[in-house]
Amino acid sequence: MNELADHLKNDRFSDAIGIERVFCKDGYWTTRLTVAEIHLNGLGVAQGGALFTLADYAFAIASNSDGRTSTGLQTTMAFISPAQLGDTVIAHIREISRRKTISMYEIELRNEQTDQLIALFTGTGFRVK
Amino acid sequence: MNELADHLKNDRFSDAIGIERVFCKDGYWTTRLTVAEIHLNGLGVAQGGALFTLADYAFAIASNSDGRTSTGLQTTMAFISPAQLGDTVIAHIREISRRKTISMYEIELRNEQTDQLIALFTGTGFRVK
Amino acid sequence: MNELADHLKNDRFSDAIGIERVFCKDGYWTTRLTVAEIHLNGLGVAQGGALFTLADYAFAIASNSDGRTSTGLQTTMAFISPAQLGDTVIAHIREISRRKTISMYEIELRNEQTDQLIALFTGTGFRVK
Amino acid sequence: MNELADHLKNDRFSDAIGIERVFCKDGYWTTRLTVAEIHLNGLGVAQGGALFTLADYAFAIASNSDGRTSTGLQTTMAFISPAQLGDTVIAHIREISRRKTISMYEIELRNEQTDQLIALFTGTGFRVK
Repeated sequence: MNELADHLKNDRFSDAIGIERVFCKDGYWTTRLTVAEIHLNGLGVAQGGALFTLADYAFAIASNSDGRTSTGLQTTMAFISPAQLGDTVIAHIREISRRKTISMYEIELRNEQTDQLIALFTGTGFRVK
Repeated sequence: MNELADHLKNDRFSDAIGIERVFCKDGYWTTRLTVAEIHLNGLGVAQGGALFTLADYAFAIASNSDGRTSTGLQTTMAFISPAQLGDTVIAHIREISRRKTISMYEIELRNEQTDQLIALFTGTGFRVK
Repeated sequence: MNELADHLKNDRFSDAIGIERVFCKDGYWTTRLTVAEIHLNGLGVAQGGALFTLADYAFAIASNSDGRTSTGLQTTMAFISPAQLGDTVIAHIREISRRKTISMYEIELRNEQTDQLIALFTGTGFRVK
Repeated sequence: MNELADHLKNDRFSDAIGIERVFCKDGYWTTRLTVAEIHLNGLGVAQGGALFTLADYAFAIASNSDGRTSTGLQTTMAFISPAQLGDTVIAHIREISRRKTISMYEIELRNEQTDQLIALFTGTGFRVK
């Protein structure tokens, strides 16, 4: 199981916008968001920044597990299909690479009910200590 | 001057997290954020998602100007130096390409006081109508 | 099965540098490269551009299948582990999204013998006709 | 002036496909390519991989200058306008960030005659020794 570092439990921005930390049955922590009014953009769907935060926080959880403190260097995010008001979006984390100082993760954001792909994120992290 | 589309004035997520729309003296709209407690991550600096939202909303303003409605396809964001509590971060928008259906913008997030580069974002947008 | 468009059979750059088109038993075309002296950089491993061409050509094959003519808009590539002289590298294609005018594919470059991940590529394509 | 590391002078793939190293009047090395038959794809314009190699080699020159040996971690490349047979394409290098172990560069590929933007590349490098 990946241990959630203390500093991750105190992410004020993620808390403020309503992102949940969830413990999956396969022994990993991930993130989840139910799209509320506050998350909408002017077109009435989830704003890209809310979805990015969901993915980036899952990336932080993965890259900061097991006593590491890692910071994001480079991220990419493709927006595939919009998330609507009321949708629950969950982050699926895949470890691409984990070396001594550099790690890379891919995060798929999917609709928890329908499994539809909403966005695809990659993040490269640098271990700071 | 680029006209701010109505739907951009009603971006609830950007409003909720305190992002300002500012009109620059060179005739363009952009975005600005003063880092408050709510924007911090567990390491005590601005969370990546708050900074992404700042850049992505500037990208939306640029790519949705002049009557266009454009949606983000693919974005990249590199995190160069952290933004601290109290820092004011402003988005500098550069148009890379603007074709009939596809446009691309680069956004630099800089500390408004010191001009230090905080993050570099690119966004590719698709004109939906 | 995905049909290989005529223009893809005439990619002079891929041919010139020795990239093969291979037909997989699951009914799809992909690309393969055996690393030779010509592909090395000054550090003695496969040059990034040779690997990018391998991935990008697989992306072209996927996004130009079934009568489409699609052009690459935005690509990302992460280099995970080096490919050595004599290694055979094969592209595994995953369709992320395929809409009317926009498609996205992810390509994993893997060592064909050991299955080790060498690079991870994503490409967003735009259908030109 | 940035000194060209020995290993950069021996990049066999760049040499094989005809990429030149050029010394600019502002004291920096960069790369240049005149599009020949060998560089074309099946649509008759410069293949993405040839252009990527041009940008990636400029990135290598910049990130390996002054005695560093740096390897590419993550790259992005947007294709803005095609390069035609006979066009001379030159790489303009911009240093985004240079820290102890991580550096980031942005490369614009431009038509040397018309200055038109052909592609925009970013690269994040990791200093290996």
